[in-house]
Order: sequence, then structure tokens, then C-alpha cells
Amino acid sequence: MDDLELARLCGEHMWTRDKASRTFGIEIDIPRAGEAIAVMAVRDNMVNSFDVCHGGILVALADTAFAFACNARNEISVAASVQAEFLRPARRGDVLTAKSVEEHRGRKSGYYTVEIRNQDDELVTLFRGRSVATGRPLLPPTK
Amino acid sequence: MDDLELARLCGEHMWTRDKASRTFGIEIDIPRAGEAIAVMAVRDNMVNSFDVCHGGILVALADTAFAFACNARNEISVAASVQAEFLRPARRGDVLTAKSVEEHRGRKSGYYTVEIRNQDDELVTLFRGRSVATGRPLLPPTK
Amino acid sequence: MDDLELARLCGEHMWTRDKASRTFGIEIDIPRAGEAIAVMAVRDNMVNSFDVCHGGILVALADTAFAFACNARNEISVAASVQAEFLRPARRGDVLTAKSVEEHRGRKSGYYTVEIRNQDDELVTLFRGRSVATGRPLLPPTK
Amino acid sequence: MDDLELARLCGEHMWTRDKASRTFGIEIDIPRAGEAIAVMAVRDNMVNSFDVCHGGILVALADTAFAFACNARNEISVAASVQAEFLRPARRGDVLTAKSVEEHRGRKSGYYTVEIRNQDDELVTLFRGRSVATGRPLLPPTK
Repeated sequence: MDDLELARLCGEHMWTRDKASRTFGIEIDIPRAGEAIAVMAVRDNMVNSFDVCHGGILVALADTAFAFACNARNEISVAASVQAEFLRPARRGDVLTAKSVEEHRGRKSGYYTVEIRNQDDELVTLFRGRSVATGRPLLPPTK
Repeated sequence: MDDLELARLCGEHMWTRDKASRTFGIEIDIPRAGEAIAVMAVRDNMVNSFDVCHGGILVALADTAFAFACNARNEISVAASVQAEFLRPARRGDVLTAKSVEEHRGRKSGYYTVEIRNQDDELVTLFRGRSVATGRPLLPPTK
Repeated sequence: MDDLELARLCGEHMWTRDKASRTFGIEIDIPRAGEAIAVMAVRDNMVNSFDVCHGGILVALADTAFAFACNARNEISVAASVQAEFLRPARRGDVLTAKSVEEHRGRKSGYYTVEIRNQDDELVTLFRGRSVATGRPLLPPTK
Repeated sequence: MDDLELARLCGEHMWTRDKASRTFGIEIDIPRAGEAIAVMAVRDNMVNSFDVCHGGILVALADTAFAFACNARNEISVAASVQAEFLRPARRGDVLTAKSVEEHRGRKSGYYTVEIRNQDDELVTLFRGRSVATGRPLLPPTK
């Protein structure tokens, strides 16, 4: 199995268990190992009191892309810290695409950048995440 | 009207419009101007593939507390950047309390810290947010 | 030996070896275990091209306070990440006081806040640091 | 004058005034507008009590690269916030190269990433900076 096949197998395994991301209506694509793309439409119940997408939901979208990017190697990695800059509001009906790429992967820590862009390719959010690898396998043992 | 009354009026105005926070089942209390407490139970649909609360939802909870803390003065303030450290996982059924306090408020920028603790008073997440004041009033003009 | 005596012994041990902090003319005080105060005057060779104190030197001052705060327990802790908000410029001749307090200390990671204020008690910089404990003793073994 | 010529003119103007960066022995190169490379050798007086380069001096190196990258358009931009992850220690005698690239530039805010690598091309520090443009020209008016 090559790196991309393993990354996608890990992604499928996560997807069936990730109730939160499915509740947000997020869809995932894994173009290569260490990268992930998460797409979400801003629904009516995602806006805050200023009628723009709640910042926490932007972070949730980015965090999902980050989680699928850092769990590509059949070793459970968890988010240790995240940081987001909100550059432009997202509005209901916008379709947001979060692309996560690996900046650096050390022995235990990984560093990922996520850009969220809207349907007009405008940058909405810049996000960074640090992951910590646990040493535990993600996939169940095969017989 | 004193500062606390104004802060609570702003909070009530935001609350009726904040669909996202209500969708998460968050409840808000404003103990004093510049502070806000947001409480949320971790529901079944908030967990990720590792069966712990999705990091983005922890950020959403903190971000809500932050938003209510930084909008206490009848001037719309929006989140410009957020940062979170995930210290301990939250599990389904946990009841999380996010308390936001104002660290510094300049002419335009405000800096807030939020601590999320669980029902056993254990620190789950350390969060910081920077807000930018827009100059626009939050409350509608009174007659 | 109580906590404060130990913290001060660790501080003295570090101080004699910390050439960088001495080069900046920083002075250290340890008011209690887990806290440190670092004082520095902005010298002529600390200003950047806009004639204000170089941001990196503000971070160096804060980082020194952070290092002395997180090394109070005779276990070597190193800075893993730092974050700083520059709220107000510092000018040559200003006397800056950085106070570091412990926000949270887990098994391995510690989280510290540092405020830098000028001689007029105005907030110049808000800084946060995350430390990682190495498990190695700071002080040499006593006979 | 093209973008690169303007960027280099701005850089030269800053360089003659930036006493702090010169005190650290930093050298600057501007390969293209919006990018800057800063090189520094770790001197004996740059190490902390653990005999590795003081974190604040790593930040100062990155911050210098960032400053020269974000001031390429003849408009004074100042650092508003910085964030650094220390991935690997730097030792006395190491020659460090900080490369700053522009990630996003909005109307007022700019976002830059800096990587510091050592002479073996190992990643030492990941740094991010946010700049704010002041609207004031950097270069003196020409006759």
C-alpha cells in the first residue's frame, strides 16, 4: 500500500466515526498524504448575532481539514493547539474550502497550515495547528 | 444605565440573533461588564473520530464567551484572531464552562482570555482572542 | 528548603550562565515560585529603523522572564513556543518591566503569561509562552 | 522603478537606521519584493543558561526578516504580533538563515511566515508575524 492509499484508508476510518464533522455537513477529500481538503456550506444555523458565520465554526472546518491531514500515517495524532486569523467574513450560503498542508513533521509534533477560501477564491481564514502523535495505531489490526 | 446593565442588554440583543451558539446549546451569563460565562454540554454529535469533543467545538464555545465579553459596551466588536491550547480532552456528557475575561482593551483592539473547565473544575482549554471594534453601535437606537 | 528558596536558587544558577540576558542588561527578581520579574532599559543599540525598540528585543525580555518563571522547580524546562502582541512602542531610555506568571502547569507543559509595562505603567507587550519540562535537574547534585 | 528595486531601496533605507539588527550581526538580502532573507551567526553572548541560543534572539532574527519583507512598498509597516515555535536548539557557532515570505496582504494587515534553518538546512524555528501598515511613506521624498 502506498502513502496515498494509506492516508485515504485512515481518512475513511476517521470519517465514519467523526459525528461532529458530519453534523457540520463537511465533506473531505485527501489529494495526497499529509494534505486534506474540507468543504462546507454556511448554513442558516451557523451564523452569529452579526449574521456572519460564527468564528468557532470556521475553526471547526479548518480543524477538521487539519485532523485529516495529520492522521495520514496510521498513527493517532491529536490537535494540541490551533491559531486562526479571521480575514474576511463568511456569509450564509457561502461554500468554504479549507485546504490543509503539512509544514513540518517532527518525531512527535506536526505543524499544519490551513487556508479557508470562499466560492470566489477569496481568503477567509488563515489557520495553523500543532499536532501531537500518540504512538497508537489509527486503523484496527488486519487479520 | 450602569456598565453591567448595558453589558447585559447587549448580551440579550446578541443572544436572540446568535443562531450558531443556540444550535450548540450554549447558555450565557454576564457576571460583569467585559466578562462572560458560556456553558455547554458535550452532546453525542459533538465528538470526533477519537470519541472526544471536536476541537472546533471547544473553540466555538470559547469564541462565544469571548464575543459576549467584548461586546459589552454597545459597540460592535468582531473577532480578529483566536488561539487555543487543548490541555485535556472533553467527553460526551461533560458540562463545560468557558469564562472570558478582558486582559486589555485599547482604542480599537481588545484582548481576552478564556478558560474552559469541565464539571470537575479541570482545565480543558486555554483560549485567547483579539477583537476589533468597528465603531458601529450594537443596540438599535431607542426612541 | 521551601518553594521560594528553591526557585531563587534555580534563578541564581541560571543567571550566572545566561550570557544573552546579561548582554541585554536585564535584571531578574523572583518574588515567588513560578513568577519572575525582568527589568531592562532600552538602550541606543536596541532600536530598529523606526527608532523604537526592536520587537525581537521585547520578546527577548519577555522570554527571559518566562524562562526564570518556568525553571523554579529544579527541573530544566525549555521554551517550546511563544506569542507576543505589540500594543505600544517602547523608546530608547524607557525602562521596561516584564512580569511572568504561571497560568497552568501540567505534567510536562507549562503555560505562562508575561506583561511588559513601561515606566509609566503602560502595557507595552502581551506575551505567552509554552514550556516543556525535560525531566533533567537544573541544579548540580549537592554533596 | 520596478517592485524589486523599490523593495531594495526600502531595505537599504531601513538598514542604515536599524541599530538593533546590526548589533546582532544580521545581514539582509532581498531576493524579491515581499521576501527577505536574514543571516546571523550565533555568538558567544547569545546563549542562555542552557548553553543554546536565547529564544528571544531567534525571534529577533525572524522579526528582522519579517520587518524587511513587510516594508517593501514604501509604506511603513510595523509588527503587530508574532508567534514562534522552537523546533530545534541553535548552538554557538551555528549560522542561521531566516527566510520571510508573504502569505497574505490585505488593505492594512499583512501575514508573513519565517523559517529559520541552520547551516545543515535543519528547521530551527517556525515564525509568523502580522504587520499593520501605517499609511506613512518609508522613503524620504525625492526632490
